[in-house]
Amino acid sequence: MYTWKSIVKPYLITKDLKPENQETPIHFLRQWITPTKYFFNRNHFAYPEISGQTFFLPIEGEIIRPAIFKYDDLIRMPSKTLILPLECSGNKRAYFDPGVYGEQWKDGALSQGVWRGIPLSSLLSISGLRRRALEVVFEAYDYGERTDLKGIFHYTRSLPVQKALHPDTLIAYELNGKPIPFKQGYPLRLIVPQWYGMASVKWLKKIIAIDHHFKGPFQDIDYNYYPHTDSDEGKTPVTTINVDSIIQQPLDRSILDTGTHIIEGIAWTGAGIIVEVEVSTDGGENWHKAKLSQDFSQPYSWTFWKYIWKVSEKAEYTIMSRATDSLGRIQPFEAMWNRKGYGYNAVYTIKVKVE
Amino acid sequence: MYTWKSIVKPYLITKDLKPENQETPIHFLRQWITPTKYFFNRNHFAYPEISGQTFFLPIEGEIIRPAIFKYDDLIRMPSKTLILPLECSGNKRAYFDPGVYGEQWKDGALSQGVWRGIPLSSLLSISGLRRRALEVVFEAYDYGERTDLKGIFHYTRSLPVQKALHPDTLIAYELNGKPIPFKQGYPLRLIVPQWYGMASVKWLKKIIAIDHHFKGPFQDIDYNYYPHTDSDEGKTPVTTINVDSIIQQPLDRSILDTGTHIIEGIAWTGAGIIVEVEVSTDGGENWHKAKLSQDFSQPYSWTFWKYIWKVSEKAEYTIMSRATDSLGRIQPFEAMWNRKGYGYNAVYTIKVKVE
Repeated sequence: MYTWKSIVKPYLITKDLKPENQETPIHFLRQWITPTKYFFNRNHFAYPEISGQTFFLPIEGEIIRPAIFKYDDLIRMPSKTLILPLECSGNKRAYFDPGVYGEQWKDGALSQGVWRGIPLSSLLSISGLRRRALEVVFEAYDYGERTDLKGIFHYTRSLPVQKALHPDTLIAYELNGKPIPFKQGYPLRLIVPQWYGMASVKWLKKIIAIDHHFKGPFQDIDYNYYPHTDSDEGKTPVTTINVDSIIQQPLDRSILDTGTHIIEGIAWTGAGIIVEVEVSTDGGENWHKAKLSQDFSQPYSWTFWKYIWKVSEKAEYTIMSRATDSLGRIQPFEAMWNRKGYGYNAVYTIKVKVE
Repeated sequence: MYTWKSIVKPYLITKDLKPENQETPIHFLRQWITPTKYFFNRNHFAYPEISGQTFFLPIEGEIIRPAIFKYDDLIRMPSKTLILPLECSGNKRAYFDPGVYGEQWKDGALSQGVWRGIPLSSLLSISGLRRRALEVVFEAYDYGERTDLKGIFHYTRSLPVQKALHPDTLIAYELNGKPIPFKQGYPLRLIVPQWYGMASVKWLKKIIAIDHHFKGPFQDIDYNYYPHTDSDEGKTPVTTINVDSIIQQPLDRSILDTGTHIIEGIAWTGAGIIVEVEVSTDGGENWHKAKLSQDFSQPYSWTFWKYIWKVSEKAEYTIMSRATDSLGRIQPFEAMWNRKGYGYNAVYTIKVKVE
């Protein structure tokens, strides 16, 4: 009965403005590629200034031939194009119980884009990585204060040399066929497939190879799993994206009529590919295989799934989705609680009322 | 330290698109008047078609001189301009515990506008309301199906004659100095000050005076408080806005540093005016008076409030706000639970971590 009108449209969902943190309206986008205007924004600081200098990328440190690459030269080098989801490691933080502090992301710190760039390995091969190099550090243009430390910090992260040299780790300059938009890291952004988004450093300023472990606060304080409230015991770094799924439609706590309804959503993983999504409409008692829609030519990309549900009895229902990847990882019934709220991937659960 | 950039901005927060339901990004707007583009959208159906007919408003039923008012004539009649908040009765529904079904509004089904229109009492006085008239019914152009009843229904609501004749009950044609935008009910919208938003019928099609109680489903099924899950005992209609407040900043679950922070928000009521807002930073043990900012020339309008908080101890804090109105109504610690989730107004509570 409903006539979809062109005037009906979603927007980014604002969680904060200082800094600007906004979710993709993920429940309303069943598109292979997230339109650029709907890409989630996750910032640590105010947006940086862009100047002429921004178009030069130095590579230094444990490098045989330190160099400064020019943007205009970089975009003429052999490039690679990858379709992949970026997910903030704090995505779904709002679902942790007990609650944790930090941006209360629900499902939409997740967007899938077409990223084009030069493999970082090409630049490291041109410059020559010294054998004693252990990690590669990426410093960004954005900077500011932290609540827990005195001083001014640039957003800075490192990768182990092995991940830095992976042929799909890119110095990206295009998103969805256009120069990366300013809010997404223009002009140059590191893109690290299969890792949570904190690794994909925006507004790249400098690359530095080092012979030790990088200890900056965005590496060594934030973006670690702390299993305990009052001690740092068991601290481990956040890296690979967990196997996960969401139900896009129906919406949680919605009211449906009897008849046939489509239960549909997205599944994704940072290890291998999605091999199965199961759906339960009785709170986890019985599970049914969902129909998957995948692009095997783009192995990092997310999977759409769908299940047709016929319901005749008026009642309340608990609907769940559970994804499994090719490494045998499966969404747990309870997410691994951790103090800073990263990596939530419990079985996705909604309630609906049929009347 | 943060430089507020003009490129940083909030958007409407999309809760659903079928129909389009979107919240005002209320935590980020500390303006007396909500900009029109940030007005919340609450729809029951698809947007209606607008035609030439839409500019004629019939008044019929228990009316001595039934008439059809023309839009062009209406906007030339003596008008009244009121500043008032509209609040969806489902605002804050997401906070009910146990959870209830329906749109999971958080704080932003709330916007304050400048509404200009003709007092409905003027039109009823021109047309002549018969003495046996008990209610005035407002039929809208939007229509569609319901999950619980067969058939097609126009959105239709009634007011008791006394409320219909209140000099501030308006047939509005301007919002914030311009013709009412289409999504807000263009060309004509009923505006009922002090009542929840369901009474302020958009896209007015027809006014009908009746000598009995109106029993349409948006009057007699929806928009009633049902205190019990499984029976309709104690059912009472939703009318006057409850005394309520929100903390706009800081945000729930945010992380702050030690020092001085501004705790600020909005308070509003459908009965009298706000006379006090109290703030607690220790989970309700101690309360402090907030500083109020009010416009007494516009007695329906909301109140901004502010409290300066000096915090030196690193810890987790539970911050609360509690408003009181001139009728002595005060926000309760627990909202009155009701099956359809209306009128939530418990003491507003957030948690923050100071580190």
